[in-house]
Amino acid sequence: MNDIFWFVPITSIIALMFALYFFKQMMKTSEGNDRMIAIASHVRKGAMAYLKQQYKVVGIFFVIMTAVFSVMAYVLNLQNPWVPFAFLTGGFFSGLAGFFGMKTATYASARTTNAAISSLNGALRIAFRSGAVMGLVVVGLGLLDISIWFVALNYFYPVELGDGHNLVIITTTMLTFGMGASAQALFARVGGGIYTKAADVGGDLVGKVEAGIPEDDPRNPATIADNVGDNVGDVAGMGADLYESYCGSILATSALGAAAFLGETDMQLKAVIAPMLIAAMGIILSIIGIFFVKTKEGATQKDLLHSLSRGINISSILIIIFSLAILLVLDISNPYGIWGSIVVGLVTGIIIGKATEYYTSATYKPTQIIAESTGTGPATVIISGLGTGMISTAIPVIAVVVGIVLAFLFASGFDFTQMGLGLYGIGIAAVGMLSTLGITLATDAYGPIADNAGGNAEMSGLGTEVRKRTDALDSLGNTTAATGKGFAIGSAALTALALLASYIEELKIGLLRIGEDVLVFASGLKIDTASATLVDFMNYYEVNLMNPKVLIGMFIGSMMSFLFCGLTMNAVGRAAGKMVDEVRRQFRAIPGIMEGKSEPDYARCVEISTIGAQREMLIPASLAILVPIAVGLLFGVPAVIGLMVGALVAGFVLAVFMANSGGAWDNAKKYIEEGHLGGKGSRAHKAAIIGDTVGDPFKDTSGPSLNILIKLMSMVSIVMAGLTVAFSVL
Amino acid sequence: MNDIFWFVPITSIIALMFALYFFKQMMKTSEGNDRMIAIASHVRKGAMAYLKQQYKVVGIFFVIMTAVFSVMAYVLNLQNPWVPFAFLTGGFFSGLAGFFGMKTATYASARTTNAAISSLNGALRIAFRSGAVMGLVVVGLGLLDISIWFVALNYFYPVELGDGHNLVIITTTMLTFGMGASAQALFARVGGGIYTKAADVGGDLVGKVEAGIPEDDPRNPATIADNVGDNVGDVAGMGADLYESYCGSILATSALGAAAFLGETDMQLKAVIAPMLIAAMGIILSIIGIFFVKTKEGATQKDLLHSLSRGINISSILIIIFSLAILLVLDISNPYGIWGSIVVGLVTGIIIGKATEYYTSATYKPTQIIAESTGTGPATVIISGLGTGMISTAIPVIAVVVGIVLAFLFASGFDFTQMGLGLYGIGIAAVGMLSTLGITLATDAYGPIADNAGGNAEMSGLGTEVRKRTDALDSLGNTTAATGKGFAIGSAALTALALLASYIEELKIGLLRIGEDVLVFASGLKIDTASATLVDFMNYYEVNLMNPKVLIGMFIGSMMSFLFCGLTMNAVGRAAGKMVDEVRRQFRAIPGIMEGKSEPDYARCVEISTIGAQREMLIPASLAILVPIAVGLLFGVPAVIGLMVGALVAGFVLAVFMANSGGAWDNAKKYIEEGHLGGKGSRAHKAAIIGDTVGDPFKDTSGPSLNILIKLMSMVSIVMAGLTVAFSVL
Repeated sequence: MNDIFWFVPITSIIALMFALYFFKQMMKTSEGNDRMIAIASHVRKGAMAYLKQQYKVVGIFFVIMTAVFSVMAYVLNLQNPWVPFAFLTGGFFSGLAGFFGMKTATYASARTTNAAISSLNGALRIAFRSGAVMGLVVVGLGLLDISIWFVALNYFYPVELGDGHNLVIITTTMLTFGMGASAQALFARVGGGIYTKAADVGGDLVGKVEAGIPEDDPRNPATIADNVGDNVGDVAGMGADLYESYCGSILATSALGAAAFLGETDMQLKAVIAPMLIAAMGIILSIIGIFFVKTKEGATQKDLLHSLSRGINISSILIIIFSLAILLVLDISNPYGIWGSIVVGLVTGIIIGKATEYYTSATYKPTQIIAESTGTGPATVIISGLGTGMISTAIPVIAVVVGIVLAFLFASGFDFTQMGLGLYGIGIAAVGMLSTLGITLATDAYGPIADNAGGNAEMSGLGTEVRKRTDALDSLGNTTAATGKGFAIGSAALTALALLASYIEELKIGLLRIGEDVLVFASGLKIDTASATLVDFMNYYEVNLMNPKVLIGMFIGSMMSFLFCGLTMNAVGRAAGKMVDEVRRQFRAIPGIMEGKSEPDYARCVEISTIGAQREMLIPASLAILVPIAVGLLFGVPAVIGLMVGALVAGFVLAVFMANSGGAWDNAKKYIEEGHLGGKGSRAHKAAIIGDTVGDPFKDTSGPSLNILIKLMSMVSIVMAGLTVAFSVL
Repeated sequence: MNDIFWFVPITSIIALMFALYFFKQMMKTSEGNDRMIAIASHVRKGAMAYLKQQYKVVGIFFVIMTAVFSVMAYVLNLQNPWVPFAFLTGGFFSGLAGFFGMKTATYASARTTNAAISSLNGALRIAFRSGAVMGLVVVGLGLLDISIWFVALNYFYPVELGDGHNLVIITTTMLTFGMGASAQALFARVGGGIYTKAADVGGDLVGKVEAGIPEDDPRNPATIADNVGDNVGDVAGMGADLYESYCGSILATSALGAAAFLGETDMQLKAVIAPMLIAAMGIILSIIGIFFVKTKEGATQKDLLHSLSRGINISSILIIIFSLAILLVLDISNPYGIWGSIVVGLVTGIIIGKATEYYTSATYKPTQIIAESTGTGPATVIISGLGTGMISTAIPVIAVVVGIVLAFLFASGFDFTQMGLGLYGIGIAAVGMLSTLGITLATDAYGPIADNAGGNAEMSGLGTEVRKRTDALDSLGNTTAATGKGFAIGSAALTALALLASYIEELKIGLLRIGEDVLVFASGLKIDTASATLVDFMNYYEVNLMNPKVLIGMFIGSMMSFLFCGLTMNAVGRAAGKMVDEVRRQFRAIPGIMEGKSEPDYARCVEISTIGAQREMLIPASLAILVPIAVGLLFGVPAVIGLMVGALVAGFVLAVFMANSGGAWDNAKKYIEEGHLGGKGSRAHKAAIIGDTVGDPFKDTSGPSLNILIKLMSMVSIVMAGLTVAFSVL
């Protein structure tokens, strides 16, 4: 093993230590008065109750899947013996990250509120560094898990196996640990998404619309559930989503590196550890960036945004410099080309983020036009929000398309026939985009903390000055959340592309495992399976666009994206309906509730959201796992690849559309609330609220769930590759 | 030439003669009193004014494109000399069909109203047979154009060219005439779609919502424009759309037949004319079916639906029988297999239609649930409508997927490696689905006639009994319209698949034309271009799913579907906004308008819709034509094929989603208007109206426009194939 590799586990430990440090710093501050503590405790208990329930369901799922993988590994001999364990650790570490992140967030919100009583900068600092705990735990645990497996598997499959085949086996085995992370993300993101919007939409429909009480009003029984939802969906859900992208992109790129440099033992190892090293360097630079986030008293919204941007920008610029240094120190071949791919990944992420900002921020035309369409009522608000969201897909797609081409060309030395190297370039672009996840995720997780802090201030009846400060932080969080969503889907797309390419490697291992050592083509041509190239596999399986199996796979993949969204949209509708019934019931049944004399039954609403989320995700979750298996068993490899690509190209565009429509409606409403077009309570405002409510499941449930669907279907295909080659019918 | 071929031109003449007969029969009936005649004349003038304006724009477009094709054919020698002419006739005949269809529809509406004064059956008969004029003109002119070209080209490229290459040249040349039909359809469907919804949405927002006057009220200045819109969008637009699918599927299948049976001269000719013969037989059987459509007095809605279904069912059952007879008489090889593919196509169409009915009719659960979601306001109506629409994509996609597999397997003798034969099977399945277009299009075109008849009754102040009869016919039209939309998109998908496969044939011709007679593979393998198979081309161009060019093509294709929808959605929003301003202005400026004492300025509203539609379609139309050319020139063949497939798999699902959401909202509103959940004027009704308004551009503009986008991008790629192989950069 190369000595420089040890940089990876060491930085992962450093990340975890800084997370612990930030957590302890935060815990030292005061949580405020009794009322604030009580509210925070309600939210914390609700969040933990949800997490407990979710982990219970996840636990059952993991037991079943581990049994399935064990049968495949030990009975059918279709997978290597490490897969069930890799799967388990992937899920376990992702769950752990979610647990730590959410715990921190729920401890931080009241403390942020309390700090806001005296200082804006103090509040920003607590909220942001608590968000950074989530960011650092995700990258720290992710890299730690990767390091442990890499060391362990190198021990069992030493280089002496010859020709670098040991690294192929090691990397493809590690890839399956992404399946654990994927499954965990499914439950966290989809379940969390349904939870948070059921509480939000349900609470708003009765509270804001029917009873006319403001958001976060303590008289609304769904308020606590709503605040819990922010943590469940936007902290734990987002974290698990990006944990998966982070690990998935690193692991897939390593697998592509092992394949691309097969036979060049020295260079192969370098290509395998390069993505890990880039990620490790990103951790260090993220931590540096985190320390640059601070603001002055009386900062404007622009100043605040600038503070966050400064941290991210510093990390991004440094990673551009230091990643080249790493590649040069590593002495990898074509270092400048690979470095070009990394930069392409970073820039693609930035462009998607900026495009998201343009289409969803009320400082720009598109959202203002949506706000103006309130003049002709809610129907035109919906039409123009949907239209704008669809149009907004153009720039992100063009960014990804240009990113794919450039990343491929840079890494392949501008040679389209060097497919292995080119795909490695696409993988490492994804790693580049995600390398500074430590700090970008911090800005995401910061959002719900600030949001909850505002809720706490409202419910605790603190002064307007405090509320103004928390509102400023919250509003900042909305901007970062929209950008974060663009980033999450962009990285999911690149990760899915890398997974797609590495699927072929899994296929190869699967074929060798069942003894198919030679690929015999229809033309009579014979190629050794072990040395077959990607193009050989494409030709062997006829994975071309005239093959009806490929076409039907793509139709099904595209349809799955829509079906998954439809199911989650309706799930939110149903769960929100139950919440509406409960809030109405409490308003009727609990005397004095509207006068603020008696406390509503918050816990019941938390329970409804929890149960609703778990029940409603059953069908979409099962579909996401079973459809790739069924397609593989029925129609074989070409259909599976078609499925992955179909889901990717349709799902990516659909996800961007939904996230941006939702974000734009949200900010159009806020724009009116700021006093434009009649301000709060006007006819325009009422129309905008309807747009915002439709946008809630768009941007926080269905849209983000597509990231998971795209990656999960790829992961399922990867772990089931052995099954597909052994048993497919057609 | 085979004698049996002459059956094709003869039936096309028969179709046109029956169209003339139905038209004359209709014209003999009375148009009613002066008021009715005046209103009908307003609508007719508006419709013709629109058509004139549209043909002017189309004319300019055709002049430019003919010049481009002439340069390609005569200067660059990239196309054969017939292409510019084929392009022109395709566009001309499609335009002619639209002109006749709309003329008939606008003459028929008042006559239907007048007949409804005395008899339901009389009204149904006039409306339906006038719709049949459109149906028969479309299939008649389509087959006539095909026949003329086939005879003419056979004269210039006689069989003596040897080896059946003459038929390859003939069929690929004829395919380009589809480009003319495609371009005409673009203007008719997209322009018509924007027109009709600008008038409808704009008129409703001021009339129904603000002024509180009923639909079709003569006091609303936008009423005439709304009625014009029904003709423009649903008669001319739908007709041009299906004209294109009809011709496209026949021509593509012929081209696939010429390719699949290359070298077997006798069988090749049979395979080329088989789709034409099936279509011709379908015409005869459609005419028979048309005569079976009649009903008894006092018929219930169910009876009416049954009357229409009887006509379609009889035609469908007969075509199943007679198509086998034709194949046996033709003595084609594997007649039962090819017959199986035809039946598969028909059944796929029926399943898509039934699924559409299930998800959009208020007699079933999904639409009722949307109606019930009005209880929590417009936001939940929108959420549940979108969710249901997305879920509703599953069955049509599965139907198409199963259809693809079965059509392929039947025609290829259950051999996946027989790709040429299998793709011919998919093509002929599309022909099977469209074979009875004469009668299915009649039921589509019948809808707007009945709708206009109702409008005329309302505006003329006829009694409730008349209005009840026209309402019954109109309501029936809504059901057939929803089914018709499912049918249109289903046939567009299969046609696009056939076009996709025939693209390779165009490529081959293009390569031979620039003198690339031999394909030299990277491996050193050499294959004669003229005898290369589909799979050879796939391997040569590396059109596999790992090729980044293919992937970026697919991303762009998927994005184009969303972008196109977003642009047309916003176009409707803007054009409707202008209509709102104008109606408000007239309400203010024209004294006595609300008391019915003075007539509004209908013509001004017609003009606004006309100008708005033409202006707003400029950008989406240009994109649909320029993007495939740009992708081809930049990234070459693999990216173009990726583009077609990406647009197809994402666009098909998106189109089904939008059409079904829109249809379900429409019927949820009608369900409430029938007295459920509080009935007209209730809170639920108001919420449902908002859903319906959002659904208008969904189901009548953006959704159907996707059919055009999918086919048009394929057609552009086909006619530009020569340019792509000669000049692509990467």
